[in-house]
Formats: sequence, C-alpha cells, structure tokens
Amino acid sequence: MPRYAYVNGRYLPHRDATVHIEDRGYQFGDGVYEVVTVAGGRLVDESPHLDRLERSLSELSIPMPLSRRALELVSHELIRRNGVSNGIVYMQVTRGVAPRDHKYPAHAVPSLVMTTRRIDFDAQPKFTDGVSVITIPDLRWARRDIKTIALLPNCMGKQQAYEAGAYEAWQVDGDGMVTEGTSSNAWIVTAGGRLATRHLSSDILHGITRRTVLAIAVEEGVPFEERAFSVDEAMHAREAFVTSATSFVTPVVRIDDTPVADGRPGPLSRRLLAWYRDYAAGLRETT
Amino acid sequence: MPRYAYVNGRYLPHRDATVHIEDRGYQFGDGVYEVVTVAGGRLVDESPHLDRLERSLSELSIPMPLSRRALELVSHELIRRNGVSNGIVYMQVTRGVAPRDHKYPAHAVPSLVMTTRRIDFDAQPKFTDGVSVITIPDLRWARRDIKTIALLPNCMGKQQAYEAGAYEAWQVDGDGMVTEGTSSNAWIVTAGGRLATRHLSSDILHGITRRTVLAIAVEEGVPFEERAFSVDEAMHAREAFVTSATSFVTPVVRIDDTPVADGRPGPLSRRLLAWYRDYAAGLRETT
Repeated sequence: MPRYAYVNGRYLPHRDATVHIEDRGYQFGDGVYEVVTVAGGRLVDESPHLDRLERSLSELSIPMPLSRRALELVSHELIRRNGVSNGIVYMQVTRGVAPRDHKYPAHAVPSLVMTTRRIDFDAQPKFTDGVSVITIPDLRWARRDIKTIALLPNCMGKQQAYEAGAYEAWQVDGDGMVTEGTSSNAWIVTAGGRLATRHLSSDILHGITRRTVLAIAVEEGVPFEERAFSVDEAMHAREAFVTSATSFVTPVVRIDDTPVADGRPGPLSRRLLAWYRDYAAGLRETT
Repeated sequence: MPRYAYVNGRYLPHRDATVHIEDRGYQFGDGVYEVVTVAGGRLVDESPHLDRLERSLSELSIPMPLSRRALELVSHELIRRNGVSNGIVYMQVTRGVAPRDHKYPAHAVPSLVMTTRRIDFDAQPKFTDGVSVITIPDLRWARRDIKTIALLPNCMGKQQAYEAGAYEAWQVDGDGMVTEGTSSNAWIVTAGGRLATRHLSSDILHGITRRTVLAIAVEEGVPFEERAFSVDEAMHAREAFVTSATSFVTPVVRIDDTPVADGRPGPLSRRLLAWYRDYAAGLRETT
C-alpha cells in the first residue's frame, strides 16, 4: 500500500484520503482519469497523457485543476514520496463538490486525486505466456473517446473475463467488429502479416500505448492498418495482443475457446513488446 | 443545507461527510442510487423504491448494505433529524472500498450514503406553467434499467437542456424514437387521446413515478399504451409531460422549437398531476 495520496492540494496518508460525498465524481461519475506508467523512475509518455487529460476535461467543460507544470510536479513528488521506481501514477479529476443536480454547477472547483502503485513489470507471466480473452457485446456509451471514470460497463466486462478465467474481455459492436478491451486496446497480426488495430473514433479510447506502438511500427517498418476487425478475423489471425499502460504489449493466445495460431505468443508481438520495453526504459525514442 | 448525512453507519454533519478516494463509486461509478420523495413526512412509494434498489444491486452482484427494515429505519431517522417534511431522501450504495482494479473485489463491504433535501413541491411554476424540453441523441449505455450512479451522459444532456433554456432533454434512439429524459420518463397524450409512454426494457429506467401514474390511469379509466413514440409524434401530440420523484407530473409545453398543442399544460396532464399529488399525500391508494 502506498504511503501517500495527493488530494486537492495535500499529501495525505493513503488511509485518510477522502473526498466529500457530494463530489460529483461520487454521485455522477462526472470526471476523468489517466494512468501513467512509471519505469525506472520516469513517467512514460507523460506529455501525451496530459494532452489526453486536457482533452477529456475540455469535452466535459471541466477546467484543468492545476497547470500542466504543477500536475507534473505533483506526480513526480508523489512517486518520490512513495518510493515508486516501477509502477503507475493514477490521476483523477472530477468536476468538484456541489449540491446534487445533474446540470453542471456554476462555481465548482475541480477535485484532483493522485495515487501510485508499485508494479514489477519484469516478473509477469502474461508477457511470456500470453493471456486469454473472451468476447462480449459492447454495452458502453457512445463517447468512449472521453476517458471518464464512469467505468461500470468496463468493470462488468472485466469481471466476466475474470470469471471465465480470462485476462480481458474484447467488446464487440453491433456489426460483429471488435472495439477494444475493457481497459486495453485490441490488436491482431492479420493472415496477410499486417498489424491491425481499430481506427480512432468515438468508438474507442485513444490509447497512449496504442499510439506509441504504432509509432514504433512505423520506425521499424512494420506494415499496419488502422481499421476494425471482426471476432472471426481475430480468431484466424496469425497473432493477437492488447496494449495499455500496464499491459504494455501483452500477447493474446486464446479468444473465447479458440487458440490464436499455435496458441503461443507470436513473434511480432514479442518484438513489439521488446521494443516497447526499450522505449519505456528510455532506450529508444519515437517520433 | 441539511444538517446530517448518513455515511456507513454514522450520522455525520453534512460538511464532514466523506468517503475514501478508493471507494469504487468514486473510481468506477460502480454503484446505484434511489431518490425517494418525502411528502408530509411520508416516504412516497418507499417499498417499490427499495425493490428497485435491490434489483439494481442484484444486477451488479453487490449485496444489500443493510436489511430493508434497517434501510427504512435509517431513512426515517435521517428525515427526522433533518426536519424534512417535504423533499427527498437520496440513497446511494456502492461496491465499497478496494485497491483500484476493474474486476469486482473479493471482500469489499458495500458503502451506504444517505442525504436529504427539503423541497417545496407546492410553489413550483413548472407544475402550473409547464416546461420546455429539447431532443438529443441518446448516448447512454445499453443497461439503462440499472439505476447506476454512472450518470455522466445524463449530466451532459441536462446541461445541454439548461443551456438551451429547457427543463429537460429527451433522449432519442437511432430510430428517432424517444427513450426518456435524462432524469425523468417521457409521456404524451396522442392525437387519438391515449396516454403513451415507452414500454419497459433495458432502454429506459423503470420509473417508480411512471409506475404509479400508470396505476392511477388504470383506476381512472384513462386509456394508455406502453410503446415507443417518435419526436415527430410527440410534437403533434395533444399533450406531453414528464414524470419522476421530483417532477411528479410536469407538463411539457414545448419540444425543441415546437409548442405542444396550444403551448399550455393539457387537461389530462393537469388531472394526472392532481391525482398524483393526492396519492403522494396519502389521500388515495393505487393497486
């Protein structure tokens, strides 16, 4: 358990970190968040994460709670206080505290909460053995591009995956096409050997790790397509994997009851993971 | 401002009422709520509200935080302490506090928060003058029958209504049919003189006031149909109104820029409001 949480200007012992019951995050899910990887003491892709935070807030007409520079200072101070070399910083911004009323309050001050968690990204079997995913209908709202804390359908989907012994649930739209996982983006290597992941739209979260992996693919000359793919195409793909701030590039070796290819992590997935690890460690740059 | 809030077993001064930052209500919108009208010191439709609370919790595999009898005792004690004769009790149940992880925690204890608000239901122009609504696309998730606190799209819609000078936003599905308001059910009196409101499904919240108004319609011999209606049909209806725990039966006199009939509250809407007021006051029963 980390020692400190940052809550609205104060570094508090984690157990004492509270917010008011009328914080609109608690009553309405009226807020957004980011999860940033910490690798070797560095915040990976800090700038694009803050870009996305600003964009999510802007879509909801919530002002930034602090300047970007101050957000950076707080997150760095928190990982220092908590002694986090590898793990994540979680930051959550809500519209603030106001008497309960659906419409936005005129004068609320945004709430800012940050926590950290240590994670050993080296010692995880998921990277070497791969994981299973299940497929479920995508029940979510129409603005999945906003990284909101209103994550109930994602939680329900992840729980379904957990109960099925799987790592993740791939959500499927009304046309049978995969949108994304409940907390990760979905990828395949097509039968033709091309990387494919769904194109950006309000149907999916605009993943920062997704973005970085695409940039690496460009640099390495890996052909790719940003387009929707069906469950059937994924089941017949050469490889599959998911990306997120904590999944990095995690090979998918089974979709529902169907093994992907020979049921072992594919070679391109493993290369992308290695490249991404180098990137996270500051050993390579991307454009 | 009410004096006390109930939070997890304690009656706290409202300003001091807090929950932990890792309450899943705050991080995931992983919880449900009810708003119960208080009229003349009575909780209106208390039993069906608790039925719905139990059902919402069951859909999310969250246990009841207290027995029904204990929930009743707490809500009655809270309105007594806060001197609420007319207004609402707000009750919120979340999955509880756990380290952040999408899947449901194995051992969380549900959180229960209750607040009250005084409302003078007599002195409101909306009942006598009627209100305007706007129409917006329904962006919400597919399980609107679960009364979840993950209400961000509802807040966005209500804000759009507010900015347009309207009381409510009617959400419209992909077929051009009205689902419901952001915090109320939608009704019309058709050109043929029949009451119409959307049939129950996962497309709408199963409103308790909706249910009571239908029961009153049965008793009073008012013909009705539970079916979807289009925006166009609503604009050409004889009357329109919305129902909710705080709206009772609120006449709708304008939809976007179109007056409903002569732009004044219709006779059936006014009769239903009067009957509902009698019911809320304990002056009539329904089956």
